[in-house]
Amino acid sequence: MNHVSVQTNVLNANHEIATENRRLFEEEGTVVINLMSAPGAGKTSLLEATLRDLGGRYRLAVIEGDLQTDLDSQRIRSLGTPSFQITTGTVCHLDARMVARALAEFPVQGLDLLVIENVGNLICPAAYDLGESLRVVVCSVAEGAEKPKKYPVMFHKADVVILNKTDLGAASGVDLRELRANVREVNPKAMLFAVSCKTGVGLDSWVAWLRDAIASRSIAATTRT
Amino acid sequence: MNHVSVQTNVLNANHEIATENRRLFEEEGTVVINLMSAPGAGKTSLLEATLRDLGGRYRLAVIEGDLQTDLDSQRIRSLGTPSFQITTGTVCHLDARMVARALAEFPVQGLDLLVIENVGNLICPAAYDLGESLRVVVCSVAEGAEKPKKYPVMFHKADVVILNKTDLGAASGVDLRELRANVREVNPKAMLFAVSCKTGVGLDSWVAWLRDAIASRSIAATTRT
Repeated sequence: MNHVSVQTNVLNANHEIATENRRLFEEEGTVVINLMSAPGAGKTSLLEATLRDLGGRYRLAVIEGDLQTDLDSQRIRSLGTPSFQITTGTVCHLDARMVARALAEFPVQGLDLLVIENVGNLICPAAYDLGESLRVVVCSVAEGAEKPKKYPVMFHKADVVILNKTDLGAASGVDLRELRANVREVNPKAMLFAVSCKTGVGLDSWVAWLRDAIASRSIAATTRT
Repeated sequence: MNHVSVQTNVLNANHEIATENRRLFEEEGTVVINLMSAPGAGKTSLLEATLRDLGGRYRLAVIEGDLQTDLDSQRIRSLGTPSFQITTGTVCHLDARMVARALAEFPVQGLDLLVIENVGNLICPAAYDLGESLRVVVCSVAEGAEKPKKYPVMFHKADVVILNKTDLGAASGVDLRELRANVREVNPKAMLFAVSCKTGVGLDSWVAWLRDAIASRSIAATTRT
Protein backbone atom coordinates (compact mmCIF):
# COMPACT_ATOMS: atom_id res chain seq x y z
CA MET A 1 0.00 0.00 0.00
CA ASN A 2 1.60 3.29 -0.98
CA HIS A 3 1.53 6.60 0.91
CA VAL A 4 -1.13 8.17 -1.31
CA SER A 5 -3.59 5.28 -0.88
CA VAL A 6 -3.01 5.29 2.89
CA GLN A 7 -3.76 9.03 2.88
CA THR A 8 -6.93 8.39 0.86
CA ASN A 9 -8.01 5.68 3.33
CA VAL A 10 -7.33 8.02 6.25
CA LEU A 11 -9.46 10.75 4.67
CA ASN A 12 -12.27 8.29 3.83
CA ALA A 13 -12.32 7.01 7.42
CA ASN A 14 -12.28 10.62 8.63
CA HIS A 15 -15.24 11.45 6.40
CA GLU A 16 -17.33 8.65 7.95
CA ILE A 17 -16.69 9.81 11.50
CA ALA A 18 -17.22 13.47 10.53
CA THR A 19 -20.60 12.51 9.07
CA GLU A 20 -21.56 10.89 12.37
CA ASN A 21 -20.35 13.98 14.32
CA ARG A 22 -22.40 16.21 11.99
CA ARG A 23 -25.54 14.10 12.49
CA LEU A 24 -25.14 14.46 16.27
CA PHE A 25 -24.62 18.24 16.06
CA GLU A 26 -27.61 18.68 13.74
CA GLU A 27 -29.88 16.64 16.02
CA GLU A 28 -28.96 19.03 18.82
CA GLY A 29 -29.41 22.12 16.66
CA THR A 30 -25.87 23.13 17.60
CA VAL A 31 -23.92 25.43 15.30
CA VAL A 32 -20.35 24.08 15.17
CA ILE A 33 -17.46 26.22 13.99
CA ASN A 34 -14.13 24.78 12.85
CA LEU A 35 -11.83 27.76 13.56
CA MET A 36 -8.58 27.63 11.62
CA SER A 37 -5.56 29.87 10.98
CA ALA A 38 -1.78 30.07 10.87
CA PRO A 39 -0.05 30.21 14.28
CA GLY A 40 -0.60 33.52 16.00
CA ALA A 41 -3.30 34.95 13.72
CA GLY A 42 -5.53 35.50 16.73
CA LYS A 43 -8.01 32.60 16.82
CA THR A 44 -8.17 32.55 20.62
CA SER A 45 -8.44 36.34 20.87
CA LEU A 46 -11.30 36.29 18.37
CA LEU A 47 -12.93 33.51 20.34
CA GLU A 48 -12.62 35.45 23.61
CA ALA A 49 -14.17 38.57 22.07
CA THR A 50 -16.95 36.52 20.46
CA LEU A 51 -17.78 34.63 23.67
CA ARG A 52 -17.87 37.89 25.66
CA ASP A 53 -20.36 39.35 23.19
CA LEU A 54 -22.54 36.23 23.02
CA GLY A 55 -22.24 35.11 26.65
CA GLY A 56 -25.28 34.93 28.90
CA ARG A 57 -27.73 34.62 26.00
CA TYR A 58 -26.51 31.33 24.53
CA ARG A 59 -25.24 27.95 25.68
CA LEU A 60 -21.63 27.87 24.49
CA ALA A 61 -18.65 25.53 24.66
CA VAL A 62 -15.19 25.25 23.14
CA ILE A 63 -12.88 22.40 22.14
CA GLU A 64 -9.26 23.53 21.90
CA GLY A 65 -6.68 21.79 19.71
CA ASP A 66 -2.97 22.35 20.35
CA LEU A 67 0.25 20.40 19.90
CA GLN A 68 1.23 21.15 23.49
CA THR A 69 -0.04 23.18 26.50
CA ASP A 70 -3.58 23.93 27.63
CA LEU A 71 -2.93 27.70 27.65
CA ASP A 72 -5.86 28.37 25.29
CA SER A 73 -8.32 26.25 27.27
CA GLN A 74 -7.33 28.15 30.42
CA ARG A 75 -8.06 31.44 28.65
CA ILE A 76 -11.51 30.25 27.59
CA ARG A 77 -12.43 28.79 31.01
CA SER A 78 -11.48 32.05 32.69
CA LEU A 79 -14.42 33.59 30.77
CA GLY A 80 -16.77 31.04 32.33
CA THR A 81 -17.16 29.01 29.12
CA PRO A 82 -16.65 25.22 29.35
CA SER A 83 -13.57 24.19 27.38
CA PHE A 84 -12.02 20.82 26.58
CA GLN A 85 -8.36 20.57 25.54
CA ILE A 86 -7.17 18.13 22.87
CA THR A 87 -3.37 17.91 22.87
CA THR A 88 -2.18 16.37 19.60
CA GLY A 89 1.54 15.94 20.38
CA THR A 90 3.15 16.09 16.94
CA VAL A 91 -0.06 15.78 14.87
CA CYS A 92 -0.51 18.91 12.77
CA HIS A 93 -4.35 19.05 12.65
CA LEU A 94 -7.48 17.87 14.43
CA ASP A 95 -9.43 15.01 12.87
CA ALA A 96 -13.01 13.81 13.27
CA ARG A 97 -12.01 10.92 15.55
CA MET A 98 -10.28 13.25 18.03
CA VAL A 99 -13.46 15.33 18.14
CA ALA A 100 -15.67 12.22 18.54
CA ARG A 101 -13.52 11.09 21.49
CA ALA A 102 -13.72 14.56 23.04
CA LEU A 103 -17.53 14.46 22.72
CA ALA A 104 -17.61 11.25 24.79
CA GLU A 105 -16.06 13.15 27.71
CA PHE A 106 -17.47 16.57 26.96
CA PRO A 107 -21.10 16.24 25.94
CA VAL A 108 -22.60 18.94 23.77
CA GLN A 109 -26.29 18.26 24.42
CA GLY A 110 -28.38 21.41 24.22
CA LEU A 111 -25.58 23.73 23.10
CA ASP A 112 -26.32 26.66 20.78
CA LEU A 113 -22.71 27.02 19.65
CA LEU A 114 -19.63 24.81 19.85
CA VAL A 115 -16.36 26.28 18.59
CA ILE A 116 -13.54 23.86 17.76
CA GLU A 117 -10.27 25.80 17.65
CA ASN A 118 -7.94 23.84 15.39
CA VAL A 119 -4.14 23.54 15.59
CA GLY A 120 -2.42 26.64 14.19
CA ASN A 121 -1.63 25.56 10.64
CA LEU A 122 -2.78 27.11 7.36
CA ILE A 123 -2.43 23.87 5.38
CA CYS A 124 -3.23 20.45 6.90
CA PRO A 125 -6.44 21.17 8.88
CA ALA A 126 -8.19 22.11 5.60
CA ALA A 127 -8.16 18.42 4.55
CA TYR A 128 -9.98 17.10 7.64
CA ASP A 129 -13.74 17.56 7.99
CA LEU A 130 -14.67 17.51 11.70
CA GLY A 131 -18.44 17.55 11.15
CA GLU A 132 -18.62 21.34 11.53
CA SER A 133 -21.41 23.58 10.22
CA LEU A 134 -19.05 26.45 9.39
CA ARG A 135 -15.39 26.72 8.45
CA VAL A 136 -14.04 30.01 9.74
CA VAL A 137 -10.53 31.01 8.67
CA VAL A 138 -8.70 33.81 10.50
CA CYS A 139 -5.87 35.63 8.71
CA SER A 140 -3.70 38.20 10.44
CA VAL A 141 -3.14 41.30 8.34
CA ALA A 142 0.47 41.22 9.60
CA GLU A 143 1.04 37.96 7.65
CA GLY A 144 0.98 39.92 4.39
CA ALA A 145 -1.48 40.45 1.54
CA GLU A 146 -0.49 37.47 -0.59
CA LYS A 147 -1.39 34.69 1.89
CA PRO A 148 -4.70 33.65 0.23
CA LYS A 149 -2.84 33.06 -3.05
CA LYS A 150 -0.08 31.08 -1.36
CA TYR A 151 -2.39 28.92 0.81
CA PRO A 152 -5.41 28.66 -1.51
CA VAL A 153 -6.96 25.40 -0.27
CA MET A 154 -7.62 26.75 3.22
CA PHE A 155 -9.18 29.96 1.89
CA HIS A 156 -11.07 28.23 -0.91
CA LYS A 157 -12.91 25.94 1.54
CA ALA A 158 -13.83 28.69 4.03
CA ASP A 159 -17.42 29.74 4.73
CA VAL A 160 -16.16 32.79 6.59
CA VAL A 161 -12.81 34.62 6.36
CA ILE A 162 -11.93 37.02 9.17
CA LEU A 163 -9.05 39.42 8.56
CA ASN A 164 -7.72 40.16 12.05
CA LYS A 165 -5.20 42.69 13.45
CA THR A 166 -6.37 45.45 11.11
CA ASP A 167 -4.84 47.84 13.69
CA LEU A 168 -1.42 46.62 12.48
CA GLY A 169 -2.23 47.34 8.81
CA ALA A 170 -0.38 50.64 8.55
CA ALA A 171 2.54 49.59 10.79
CA SER A 172 3.08 46.37 8.85
CA GLY A 173 2.73 48.07 5.47
CA VAL A 174 0.00 45.67 4.31
CA ASP A 175 -2.76 46.97 2.04
CA LEU A 176 -6.10 45.68 3.38
CA ARG A 177 -7.78 46.23 0.01
CA GLU A 178 -5.19 44.04 -1.70
CA LEU A 179 -5.65 41.34 0.96
CA ARG A 180 -9.45 41.47 0.51
CA ALA A 181 -9.07 41.24 -3.28
CA ASN A 182 -6.79 38.20 -2.89
CA VAL A 183 -9.36 36.47 -0.63
CA ARG A 184 -12.04 37.20 -3.23
CA GLU A 185 -9.89 35.81 -6.04
CA VAL A 186 -9.59 32.46 -4.22
CA ASN A 187 -13.09 32.44 -2.72
CA PRO A 188 -15.73 34.80 -4.13
CA LYS A 189 -18.51 33.47 -1.87
CA ALA A 190 -17.13 33.45 1.70
CA MET A 191 -18.45 35.97 4.22
CA LEU A 192 -15.61 38.41 4.79
CA PHE A 193 -15.05 40.47 7.95
CA ALA A 194 -12.16 42.80 8.78
CA VAL A 195 -11.65 43.15 12.54
CA SER A 196 -9.21 44.08 15.25
CA CYS A 197 -9.62 41.96 18.38
CA LYS A 198 -7.35 44.49 20.09
CA THR A 199 -9.38 47.64 19.40
CA GLY A 200 -12.74 45.89 18.85
CA VAL A 201 -13.23 47.43 15.40
CA GLY A 202 -15.39 45.29 13.12
CA LEU A 203 -16.34 42.68 15.74
CA ASP A 204 -19.97 43.86 15.88
CA SER A 205 -20.65 42.83 12.28
CA TRP A 206 -19.11 39.39 12.79
CA VAL A 207 -21.00 38.71 16.03
CA ALA A 208 -24.29 39.97 14.52
CA TRP A 209 -23.80 37.60 11.59
CA LEU A 210 -23.03 34.72 13.97
CA ARG A 211 -26.16 35.47 16.04
CA ASP A 212 -28.21 35.19 12.86
CA ALA A 213 -26.52 31.88 12.01
CA ILE A 214 -27.35 30.54 15.50
CA ALA A 215 -30.95 31.80 15.27
CA SER A 216 -31.49 30.20 11.84
CA ARG A 217 -30.08 26.91 13.05
CA SER A 218 -32.21 26.86 16.18
CA ILE A 219 -35.32 27.55 14.08
CA ALA A 220 -34.37 24.75 11.69
CA ALA A 221 -33.89 22.33 14.60
CA THR A 222 -37.23 23.34 16.17
CA THR A 223 -39.04 22.96 12.86
CA ARG A 224 -37.57 19.53 12.32
CA THR A 225 -38.67 18.14 15.69
CA MET B 1 0.47 -1.61 7.13
CA ASN B 2 -0.90 1.09 9.40
CA HIS B 3 -0.55 4.86 9.12
CA VAL B 4 2.17 5.11 11.76
CA SER B 5 4.40 2.50 10.13
CA VAL B 6 3.91 4.16 6.73
CA GLN B 7 4.94 7.45 8.33
CA THR B 8 8.03 5.77 9.84
CA ASN B 9 8.94 4.30 6.44
CA VAL B 10 8.50 7.70 4.81
CA LEU B 11 10.82 9.33 7.36
CA ASN B 12 13.42 6.55 7.05
CA ALA B 13 13.43 6.92 3.25
CA ASN B 14 13.69 10.69 3.69
CA HIS B 15 16.67 10.27 6.02
CA GLU B 16 18.56 8.23 3.39
CA ILE B 17 18.06 10.85 0.69
CA ALA B 18 18.86 13.69 3.11
CA THR B 19 22.15 11.95 3.96
CA GLU B 20 23.03 11.84 0.27
CA ASN B 21 22.09 15.54 -0.16
CA ARG B 22 24.25 16.40 2.87
CA ARG B 23 27.22 14.48 1.45
CA LEU B 24 26.91 16.44 -1.80
CA PHE B 25 26.69 19.79 0.01
CA GLU B 26 29.67 18.99 2.23
CA GLU B 27 31.80 17.96 -0.74
CA GLU B 28 31.11 21.36 -2.25
CA GLY B 29 31.76 23.20 1.03
CA THR B 30 28.30 24.77 0.67
CA VAL B 31 26.50 26.00 3.76
CA VAL B 32 22.84 25.00 3.36
CA ILE B 33 20.10 26.65 5.39
CA ASN B 34 16.64 25.12 5.85
CA LEU B 35 14.60 28.27 6.51
CA MET B 36 11.31 27.57 8.29
CA SER B 37 8.46 29.55 9.87
CA ALA B 38 4.72 29.96 10.12
CA PRO B 39 3.06 31.68 7.12
CA GLY B 40 3.89 35.37 6.95
CA ALA B 41 6.64 35.46 9.58
CA GLY B 42 8.95 37.10 7.04
CA LYS B 43 11.21 34.32 5.69
CA THR B 44 11.41 35.87 2.22
CA SER B 45 11.98 39.39 3.60
CA LEU B 46 14.79 38.06 5.81
CA LEU B 47 16.24 36.26 2.82
CA GLU B 48 16.11 39.42 0.68
CA ALA B 49 17.87 41.47 3.38
CA THR B 50 20.47 38.72 3.91
CA LEU B 51 21.20 38.33 0.20
CA ARG B 52 21.56 42.10 -0.23
CA ASP B 53 24.13 42.19 2.57
CA LEU B 54 26.06 39.14 1.35
CA GLY B 55 25.74 39.69 -2.40
CA GLY B 56 28.79 40.25 -4.56
CA ARG B 57 31.14 38.58 -2.10
CA TYR B 58 29.68 35.07 -2.16
CA ARG B 59 28.19 32.60 -4.60
CA LEU B 60 24.56 32.28 -3.49
CA ALA B 61 21.40 30.46 -4.59
CA VAL B 62 17.91 29.83 -3.26
CA ILE B 63 15.39 27.00 -3.53
CA GLU B 64 11.85 28.19 -2.77
CA GLY B 65 9.11 25.88 -1.48
CA ASP B 66 5.47 26.94 -1.76
CA LEU B 67 2.10 25.23 -2.14
CA GLN B 68 1.25 27.51 -5.06
CA THR B 69 2.72 30.52 -6.94
CA ASP B 70 6.32 31.41 -7.70
CA LEU B 71 5.97 34.87 -6.10
CA ASP B 72 8.89 34.25 -3.73
CA SER B 73 11.22 33.00 -6.45
CA GLN B 74 10.42 36.12 -8.50
CA ARG B 75 11.37 38.29 -5.50
CA ILE B 76 14.71 36.49 -5.12
CA ARG B 77 15.55 36.56 -8.84
CA SER B 78 14.88 40.29 -8.98
CA LEU B 79 17.88 40.64 -6.62
CA GLY B 80 20.08 38.84 -9.16
CA THR B 81 20.27 35.61 -7.12
CA PRO B 82 19.47 32.33 -8.92
CA SER B 83 16.30 30.78 -7.52
CA PHE B 84 14.48 27.51 -8.19
CA GLN B 85 10.79 27.13 -7.30
CA ILE B 86 9.39 23.88 -5.90
CA THR B 87 5.57 23.97 -5.94
CA THR B 88 4.23 21.28 -3.60
CA GLY B 89 0.49 21.52 -4.44
CA THR B 90 -1.14 20.31 -1.23
CA VAL B 91 2.00 18.91 0.46
CA CYS B 92 2.65 20.82 3.68
CA HIS B 93 6.47 20.58 3.77
CA LEU B 94 9.54 20.05 1.62
CA ASP B 95 11.24 16.66 1.78
CA ALA B 96 14.74 15.48 0.85
CA ARG B 97 13.55 13.91 -2.42
CA MET B 98 12.04 17.19 -3.66
CA VAL B 99 15.37 18.89 -2.93
CA ALA B 100 17.35 16.10 -4.64
CA ARG B 101 15.17 16.48 -7.74
CA ALA B 102 15.67 20.25 -7.70
CA LEU B 103 19.44 19.74 -7.50
CA ALA B 104 19.32 17.71 -10.74
CA GLU B 105 17.96 20.77 -12.56
CA PHE B 106 19.60 23.45 -10.45
CA PRO B 107 23.20 22.44 -9.74
CA VAL B 108 24.85 23.83 -6.63
CA GLN B 109 28.49 23.23 -7.58
CA GLY B 110 30.80 25.85 -6.10
CA LEU B 111 28.16 27.68 -4.05
CA ASP B 112 29.07 29.26 -0.73
CA LEU B 113 25.49 29.38 0.51
CA LEU B 114 22.25 27.71 -0.55
CA VAL B 115 19.08 28.74 1.28
CA ILE B 116 16.07 26.41 1.04
CA GLU B 117 12.97 28.35 2.02
CA ASN B 118 10.46 25.80 3.27
CA VAL B 119 6.64 25.90 3.02
CA GLY B 120 5.15 28.24 5.65
CA ASN B 121 4.22 25.81 8.42
CA LEU B 122 5.43 25.74 12.01
CA ILE B 123 4.81 21.98 12.45
CA CYS B 124 5.37 19.51 9.61
CA PRO B 125 8.66 20.75 8.06
CA ALA B 126 10.41 20.06 11.40
CA ALA B 127 10.09 16.29 10.77
CA TYR B 128 11.86 16.29 7.39
CA ASP B 129 15.65 16.57 7.20
CA LEU B 130 16.63 18.04 3.82
CA GLY B 131 20.38 17.54 4.28
CA GLU B 132 20.85 21.11 5.52
CA SER B 133 23.78 22.37 7.61
CA LEU B 134 21.62 24.78 9.63
CA ARG B 135 17.97 24.91 10.64
CA VAL B 136 16.91 28.52 10.90
CA VAL B 137 13.45 29.23 12.35
CA VAL B 138 11.86 32.67 11.92
CA CYS B 139 9.15 33.76 14.35
CA SER B 140 7.22 36.99 13.92
CA VAL B 141 6.87 38.94 17.15
CA ALA B 142 3.27 39.67 16.04
CA GLU B 143 2.43 35.95 16.42
CA GLY B 144 2.58 36.30 20.21
CA ALA B 145 5.03 35.40 22.97
CA GLU B 146 3.79 31.87 23.62
CA LYS B 147 4.51 30.35 20.19
CA PRO B 148 7.72 28.47 21.21
CA LYS B 149 5.75 26.69 23.95
CA LYS B 150 2.88 25.81 21.64
CA TYR B 151 5.05 24.61 18.73
CA PRO B 152 8.01 23.16 20.66
CA VAL B 153 9.34 20.63 18.12
CA MET B 154 10.13 23.29 15.53
CA PHE B 155 11.92 25.50 18.07
CA HIS B 156 13.64 22.59 19.84
CA LYS B 157 15.34 21.44 16.63
CA ALA B 158 16.49 24.91 15.51
CA ASP B 159 20.17 25.90 15.27
CA VAL B 160 19.17 29.54 14.90
CA VAL B 161 15.97 31.34 15.94
CA ILE B 162 15.31 34.76 14.42
CA LEU B 163 12.60 36.89 16.04
CA ASN B 164 11.40 39.15 13.23
CA LYS B 165 9.09 42.19 13.07
CA THR B 166 10.42 43.61 16.34
CA ASP B 167 9.13 46.97 15.05
CA LEU B 168 5.61 45.61 15.68
CA GLY B 169 6.40 44.64 19.29
CA ALA B 170 4.81 47.64 20.97
CA ALA B 171 1.86 47.88 18.54
CA SER B 172 1.04 44.19 18.94
CA GLY B 173 1.47 44.26 22.72
CA VAL B 174 3.99 41.39 22.70
CA ASP B 175 6.80 41.41 25.25
CA LEU B 176 10.04 40.56 23.43
CA ARG B 177 11.71 39.50 26.70
CA GLU B 178 8.94 36.99 27.35
CA LEU B 179 9.23 35.65 23.79
CA ARG B 180 13.02 35.30 24.20
CA ALA B 181 12.56 33.50 27.52
CA ASN B 182 10.08 31.09 25.92
CA VAL B 183 12.55 30.30 23.11
CA ARG B 184 15.24 29.66 25.72
CA GLU B 185 12.94 27.36 27.71
CA VAL B 186 12.41 25.13 24.66
CA ASN B 187 15.94 25.49 23.23
CA PRO B 188 18.72 26.83 25.46
CA LYS B 189 21.42 26.39 22.81
CA ALA B 190 20.10 27.97 19.60
CA MET B 191 21.64 31.22 18.36
CA LEU B 192 19.00 33.89 18.92
CA PHE B 193 18.66 37.12 16.93
CA ALA B 194 15.96 39.80 17.22
CA VAL B 195 15.54 41.75 13.98
CA SER B 196 13.23 43.91 11.96
CA CYS B 197 13.52 43.31 8.23
CA LYS B 198 11.49 46.48 7.77
CA THR B 199 13.75 48.89 9.72
CA GLY B 200 16.95 46.84 9.41
CA VAL B 201 17.50 46.70 13.18
CA GLY B 202 19.44 43.63 14.30
CA LEU B 203 20.23 42.33 10.82
CA ASP B 204 23.94 43.18 11.11
CA SER B 205 24.49 40.68 13.93
CA TRP B 206 22.72 37.89 12.05
CA VAL B 207 24.60 38.52 8.80
CA ALA B 208 27.95 38.78 10.63
CA TRP B 209 27.26 35.41 12.29
CA LEU B 210 26.30 33.89 8.92
CA ARG B 211 29.50 35.22 7.31
CA ASP B 212 31.48 33.45 10.03
CA ALA B 213 29.53 30.23 9.42
CA ILE B 214 30.31 30.45 5.69
CA ALA B 215 33.98 31.23 6.35
CA SER B 216 34.37 28.29 8.75
CA ARG B 217 32.72 25.93 6.28
CA SER B 218 34.87 27.11 3.39
CA ILE B 219 38.00 26.63 5.47
CA ALA B 220 36.85 23.13 6.46
CA ALA B 221 36.21 22.25 2.81
CA THR B 222 39.60 23.63 1.72
CA THR B 223 41.38 21.74 4.49
CA ARG B 224 39.67 18.49 3.52
CA THR B 225 40.69 18.66 -0.16
